[in-house]
Amino acid sequence: MSDLLVNSEKGHLPASQRIPAIAKPFVSERAAKTLDLVEKFVEEECIPADAVFVRQIGETTEQRFSSHPPIIEDLKAKAKRLGLWNMFLPKNHFKEGAGFSNLEYGLMAEYLGKSRTASEATNCAAPDTGNMEVLAKYGNEQQKRRWLDPLLDGKIRSAFLMTEPQVASSDATNIEMRIERDGDSYVLNGQKWWSSGAGDPRCEIYVVLGKTDPNNADKYKQQSVILVPHDTPGITINRMLSVFGYDDAPHGHGHITFKNVRVPATNMVLGEGRGFEIIQGRLGPGRIHHAMRSIGAAEKALEWFLARINDERKKPFGQLLNKHGIMLERVARSRIEIDAARLAVLNAAIKIDESNAKGALKEIAEVKVLVPEVNLTVIDRAIQAYGGAGVSQDTPLANMYALGRTMRIVDGPDEVHLVQLAKNENKRGPAHKRRLDAQKKKGEELCRKFGVSTNDVLHLNRQSGKKSKL
Amino acid sequence: MSDLLVNSEKGHLPASQRIPAIAKPFVSERAAKTLDLVEKFVEEECIPADAVFVRQIGETTEQRFSSHPPIIEDLKAKAKRLGLWNMFLPKNHFKEGAGFSNLEYGLMAEYLGKSRTASEATNCAAPDTGNMEVLAKYGNEQQKRRWLDPLLDGKIRSAFLMTEPQVASSDATNIEMRIERDGDSYVLNGQKWWSSGAGDPRCEIYVVLGKTDPNNADKYKQQSVILVPHDTPGITINRMLSVFGYDDAPHGHGHITFKNVRVPATNMVLGEGRGFEIIQGRLGPGRIHHAMRSIGAAEKALEWFLARINDERKKPFGQLLNKHGIMLERVARSRIEIDAARLAVLNAAIKIDESNAKGALKEIAEVKVLVPEVNLTVIDRAIQAYGGAGVSQDTPLANMYALGRTMRIVDGPDEVHLVQLAKNENKRGPAHKRRLDAQKKKGEELCRKFGVSTNDVLHLNRQSGKKSKL
Amino acid sequence: MSDLLVNSEKGHLPASQRIPAIAKPFVSERAAKTLDLVEKFVEEECIPADAVFVRQIGETTEQRFSSHPPIIEDLKAKAKRLGLWNMFLPKNHFKEGAGFSNLEYGLMAEYLGKSRTASEATNCAAPDTGNMEVLAKYGNEQQKRRWLDPLLDGKIRSAFLMTEPQVASSDATNIEMRIERDGDSYVLNGQKWWSSGAGDPRCEIYVVLGKTDPNNADKYKQQSVILVPHDTPGITINRMLSVFGYDDAPHGHGHITFKNVRVPATNMVLGEGRGFEIIQGRLGPGRIHHAMRSIGAAEKALEWFLARINDERKKPFGQLLNKHGIMLERVARSRIEIDAARLAVLNAAIKIDESNAKGALKEIAEVKVLVPEVNLTVIDRAIQAYGGAGVSQDTPLANMYALGRTMRIVDGPDEVHLVQLAKNENKRGPAHKRRLDAQKKKGEELCRKFGVSTNDVLHLNRQSGKKSKL
Amino acid sequence: MSDLLVNSEKGHLPASQRIPAIAKPFVSERAAKTLDLVEKFVEEECIPADAVFVRQIGETTEQRFSSHPPIIEDLKAKAKRLGLWNMFLPKNHFKEGAGFSNLEYGLMAEYLGKSRTASEATNCAAPDTGNMEVLAKYGNEQQKRRWLDPLLDGKIRSAFLMTEPQVASSDATNIEMRIERDGDSYVLNGQKWWSSGAGDPRCEIYVVLGKTDPNNADKYKQQSVILVPHDTPGITINRMLSVFGYDDAPHGHGHITFKNVRVPATNMVLGEGRGFEIIQGRLGPGRIHHAMRSIGAAEKALEWFLARINDERKKPFGQLLNKHGIMLERVARSRIEIDAARLAVLNAAIKIDESNAKGALKEIAEVKVLVPEVNLTVIDRAIQAYGGAGVSQDTPLANMYALGRTMRIVDGPDEVHLVQLAKNENKRGPAHKRRLDAQKKKGEELCRKFGVSTNDVLHLNRQSGKKSKL
Repeated sequence: MSDLLVNSEKGHLPASQRIPAIAKPFVSERAAKTLDLVEKFVEEECIPADAVFVRQIGETTEQRFSSHPPIIEDLKAKAKRLGLWNMFLPKNHFKEGAGFSNLEYGLMAEYLGKSRTASEATNCAAPDTGNMEVLAKYGNEQQKRRWLDPLLDGKIRSAFLMTEPQVASSDATNIEMRIERDGDSYVLNGQKWWSSGAGDPRCEIYVVLGKTDPNNADKYKQQSVILVPHDTPGITINRMLSVFGYDDAPHGHGHITFKNVRVPATNMVLGEGRGFEIIQGRLGPGRIHHAMRSIGAAEKALEWFLARINDERKKPFGQLLNKHGIMLERVARSRIEIDAARLAVLNAAIKIDESNAKGALKEIAEVKVLVPEVNLTVIDRAIQAYGGAGVSQDTPLANMYALGRTMRIVDGPDEVHLVQLAKNENKRGPAHKRRLDAQKKKGEELCRKFGVSTNDVLHLNRQSGKKSKL
Repeated sequence: MSDLLVNSEKGHLPASQRIPAIAKPFVSERAAKTLDLVEKFVEEECIPADAVFVRQIGETTEQRFSSHPPIIEDLKAKAKRLGLWNMFLPKNHFKEGAGFSNLEYGLMAEYLGKSRTASEATNCAAPDTGNMEVLAKYGNEQQKRRWLDPLLDGKIRSAFLMTEPQVASSDATNIEMRIERDGDSYVLNGQKWWSSGAGDPRCEIYVVLGKTDPNNADKYKQQSVILVPHDTPGITINRMLSVFGYDDAPHGHGHITFKNVRVPATNMVLGEGRGFEIIQGRLGPGRIHHAMRSIGAAEKALEWFLARINDERKKPFGQLLNKHGIMLERVARSRIEIDAARLAVLNAAIKIDESNAKGALKEIAEVKVLVPEVNLTVIDRAIQAYGGAGVSQDTPLANMYALGRTMRIVDGPDEVHLVQLAKNENKRGPAHKRRLDAQKKKGEELCRKFGVSTNDVLHLNRQSGKKSKL
Repeated sequence: MSDLLVNSEKGHLPASQRIPAIAKPFVSERAAKTLDLVEKFVEEECIPADAVFVRQIGETTEQRFSSHPPIIEDLKAKAKRLGLWNMFLPKNHFKEGAGFSNLEYGLMAEYLGKSRTASEATNCAAPDTGNMEVLAKYGNEQQKRRWLDPLLDGKIRSAFLMTEPQVASSDATNIEMRIERDGDSYVLNGQKWWSSGAGDPRCEIYVVLGKTDPNNADKYKQQSVILVPHDTPGITINRMLSVFGYDDAPHGHGHITFKNVRVPATNMVLGEGRGFEIIQGRLGPGRIHHAMRSIGAAEKALEWFLARINDERKKPFGQLLNKHGIMLERVARSRIEIDAARLAVLNAAIKIDESNAKGALKEIAEVKVLVPEVNLTVIDRAIQAYGGAGVSQDTPLANMYALGRTMRIVDGPDEVHLVQLAKNENKRGPAHKRRLDAQKKKGEELCRKFGVSTNDVLHLNRQSGKKSKL
Repeated sequence: MSDLLVNSEKGHLPASQRIPAIAKPFVSERAAKTLDLVEKFVEEECIPADAVFVRQIGETTEQRFSSHPPIIEDLKAKAKRLGLWNMFLPKNHFKEGAGFSNLEYGLMAEYLGKSRTASEATNCAAPDTGNMEVLAKYGNEQQKRRWLDPLLDGKIRSAFLMTEPQVASSDATNIEMRIERDGDSYVLNGQKWWSSGAGDPRCEIYVVLGKTDPNNADKYKQQSVILVPHDTPGITINRMLSVFGYDDAPHGHGHITFKNVRVPATNMVLGEGRGFEIIQGRLGPGRIHHAMRSIGAAEKALEWFLARINDERKKPFGQLLNKHGIMLERVARSRIEIDAARLAVLNAAIKIDESNAKGALKEIAEVKVLVPEVNLTVIDRAIQAYGGAGVSQDTPLANMYALGRTMRIVDGPDEVHLVQLAKNENKRGPAHKRRLDAQKKKGEELCRKFGVSTNDVLHLNRQSGKKSKL
């Protein structure tokens, strides 16, 4: 472990030694070593760099979305030297990545989630990660050379344009962006928002979901995914969306209009009508990444919480906060909730590793709902312990809360996942009913066999007409 | 799978195939097979037998605590034939058991928790399990022959007498039961309650915690554990305690007085002053057993819930309950919460397997708090779905709730575990503070290095004295 | 104030001086005096009598539902002497009562809710109260003389038979009990459960909801209410239902079968097809009574909680529980939640007083959902503070919890009220939408008027096609 | 009602007709009329003006805290014409105000809380309100003429400087700002933050809490309040604090340093050592104002929520959101929680009206904890219904959440109020214990009187020594 960690934390166990016992069989020695490197890199390089990052962005909206904080390139160079690059691409699905499993990368993503700059510094930042997976899995050679290579190399960035402001687009069948074939081109018309990353001047490619066949009887065959260079005429970034007052510059969340945007037909990914299939595959691992980064955020919030209650200058009513029972309960509950949530994510990652995102549908949905709630709860407790400092720029907590809050919305709001989980669970309902009925019947048979009345234990069988004689 | 399960549940996966992916590496093939047997035994034999069990107990208090429901012996014989016996004694700590790890038995305990009779039928019922562990680990040969052998054989039962009504005995240093040496004997005076199992006519031995040296400067050396035959003169079971109206007969929860109760000195376990050590070791695995049975109870509650919302006769406002969004959300949340909690228990079990209860202190404490809350929440949702039937004898739910509620109290109430967890976590607080401070300092150095002002992003530095000139 | 209260509580303010400031204008001087009498009667007579009551009931089911604890008649005589009788019948709706408003009686009901015997002792116990309201409001002279008079006098008791086991009867249109005209009689066939009070040997009259016209196109005209003497041939009380492990004897909750039960046609209340109207009117004030008794239960739980944390014998980790922050937070939250809930009930009572139950639909529904949750939460906290004593017969808490839990179910489960409240609230939705849209439009007009761009504050309007020139 | 309200909301009841029934006796006819005017002014003038307000502030930090959005003066002129001015100063305490009670103004404050500009537009904005109360109550003539008059007239604004960054200043005894007498002057040294309003260029006066006598044995006599003109040399506004990502410009939250800041001795308020007394009196009504504005915010959030679920364009899974049970439950719970919380605030306001802030200590503390939690919960539900729009600038919700979140912190964090409430409640604990013990004793006496055994209902009294003979 490095100086900073060693000096500050006597007895600090490196990340690899804090892997939950139940997950250890799934972690290779190489991954364990990389994990320790990631922790060191994040704690010693990235977190301090976060302070520079926010100051290298300008003040006006125009400035902020034209900036490219130099510290990022510095960190990227360091990360590459350390071999911390593209860890996200899972080994059993892609040869281009660093050769880790989803479980192994998940453990690393936890640490990346503690810093604002770490994911990008290691080329593991959304939405590039998902876009690279799409290109690696479904892209043709030309698409790979032109877009995947520079993305894998960290030379350019990308955006994923799915959400639309005017419809309930969490249900992808509602998408309205039109993609029409016209000769050797496709022409796009419509609007997208929450196009995250579109604010970055280095963002050169948009992965766009739209409808090529809106009248197809199979509503899951109407959609296609197409690649649109950012500088194609007809595209306007109207404005950037804020998240609780934060603009997340330079990355940003764009609201973008497409007016007769024409791209070569060869930019179609996988083929017309394959859009739904592509985004389904894309979202699974991405949700694990988000979830593990959220776990990291929650851990960071808890660290800040613990630091606060040990701050010698803060003694309400004459006692350090770590003597206040209300605070202690919150610390303990945070620890409990984070640890259980982490296991849920790791289990989901293993399910993906063992099959794929579809095979882990239930586990991913569970994590998608559970983790953001835990994360927000823990951050909120930390905010409260800090009082005014908690909501301000003096701690990272409020910003983490804002980001964490979006996790209950992006990639499908909680409610969609809850209903899908429930419907899936409900499929077992009739069988449960039959079994419970059969068990009851068998119990009655047993009563007879054992010579016990099947009557209720509070049996009365009192003829009311005769009750007065009691 | 058996007829009952196969017939009622098309496509039902046996238990071994529903082990969470992350836990699979820890489960031997033999354990997997046993697990499926346990499921089958519980679902097909024990749950139907529960109905007989409650009817084979009498009506008056006196009757109910003299009864020995014959169905239990029937089940025990079946279980023995199936090889489902003493699975709880962990292989790496005891040679007397069935040779499973805590993790493996934990998986089985989940199914045992679905039936009122299953734990006893397989000789895996508390408090015998903990008492057998104590005897196997700390008992001398004589003690083992006299008490452990018949316990392992299911011939007798036992009680564990720790809790006292007049003090906060969750803190064992408060215990007041006096054990005094007198020649070749020890003489006990005091009272105990929540002596679970003491109501059973087959309960022949009490494992009693008391103080042999109440003035010892080391307050963890004052306690001793001693074996007291149930029929020793001077012992009176004054009454049985109820749990939400249930008396849990014939097992029961006794309130017992000791008046000059004299036992041979050889009944002392391990030696005077070793009591604290013994109960610490005793509680760890027991908490895992409780927790996994609670997980099983929660699963059972969810099954009942699902059965209800598929009951064709129940159509409030013209729609089956499985079309009501409020119900679906509760189903989904239950699934999420149970699955995360189960992983937490399994992880704790592995920690015990890899070291011992002390090495898994944090994980056990987490589970001790988390699981009962999840269990109660899920049961409560199921009760609500059933309405009147939910609180009545027509479902097992209210009884399960009552039992589940005690789990927040027994073996130390939630609050004790929360505070201990927090204090343990808080040990890392000062180091976190130092690291966060160091990261802040390094961030400022980086700012200077990159030529960025270390000023706050909302820097103003406005001399108020000059503000009017703005 | 009496000796017991004065001696034990220095500075205890009588009930009338603890009425929330906002409710005082609604309380007459007479009611305030009666309120103080009620408090005194409950605290000094009823609560001590509760201990006798539970011991005057037998042990077997048959005994328990044949018993008539003599202490009740003793209390009734005392209550009558004190003028504490029939306070529930609201003055502006009935001349037969004690002349109080729903608000005034509500305040009294809070105190009645602190004792198991107090409501019956003052002839204010459900379901008699609702049945008396029905008879007083809708009964004909003959019905009043035969049934209302002895009920008002406390000579007999009654049951209200609405709920049915085989349907979702919280939606009254699902009721299946058949009431068929046959000459000068009506003949009833069907079954009912949760017929509370039917266990009492003094219960002489059943107020029964059934269908006289199951095919009526107006599904709210199919039902009728009819009076059925308990000893009419054809009635069988099959068994009593338990609530958690309590049978609530001798009152009880009956499961009753009707087989060709014939009563005179003159027993019809108000007329065929008026059943829905009758039960709607019946339920409103009853919900207020339940709610205020629940508030009283919550206050009692909090008193027990406070008593516990001041118990000198209970010092976990060396400190009285009232020094533990976790406990203090729970005390404070309980106080906050109870006080807010009480105001909600009192406001609903005033709405009924000012119009009727229909005019207070929203307020009653709110209270129906809110109060049981608060009550259960507070009781649960108190249970936890008591540990084992909390779930046992040594405190009234577990019994109170069981009763409180049914309040989320009886008279319509939470979910029915939540959905109805929401649908009612949703009626305002379109208007809100129109107004918000209009405000937005006006805001844009104002922007133009003030010469401010209507652009978004994070406006960018960057033509992506030209971005590379930045 | 105005066109906008009438046109958009068919059947909209004016505010005065929606006052909770229980509060009506406390509202004069004049207040009811003013209330309707306030509603109209807020809905028709202020809310549309909010859109202009945010656009009339600049982009850079320097610009934003030098701006004075002209629309504010426009609104102020309108408000004055309508007689909506200084409604906050309670009639029974101050002659300078509009002559309303705290309850009456509370009802108005609810509507002010729905708009960003409304409070300032009616000269009812914090911290001016509290500062004006301080000056009106404790200021001498000179102080009143110089500062109170222009404040009452809306010519200048003010800040209240209490909180300090380096200590737990929610406990005022920890304050470190030094105020030292030096001849005819006082000299201030120290720093303050969360000096809300200090960013406004019109803010001319700081009301500062500091210590004149830090060694006084009575720690509540160490503090004094002194008036400091904003342009006194030695004052530096170092920076502005953000709340989540919002800077709340031009109002702002300043971090201010005092270095040898010298003011005339006549600027002392009330006298040295009276500071604690002054701030105590100041905070009570202010908490009611905050609370009722929060209620208004919650109502607004619910309106937005309802508008969303009636948005015809949003049909996830083919159904309007108002058909989704999950959404309906949240609407209903929001309605329940808001209504109960409002009653709690109104009751607290009446307690202040009837005595003063000290007499309403309990009620204010309850509201201080309850209302922000309700408000945040409701806003969060609305955010979730809006998805991406909810966290962005397209709805006011995220900004309302940020503001609402600070309400759990300002004027003392939740935890301080919870502990104080609990300690106050706990004073009754010993008396409760004595009464419960006395009731138990009386119960036993009654048992004897009625010839019933005092034995436990689950009495056993089984001599274990003889059990084997059963």
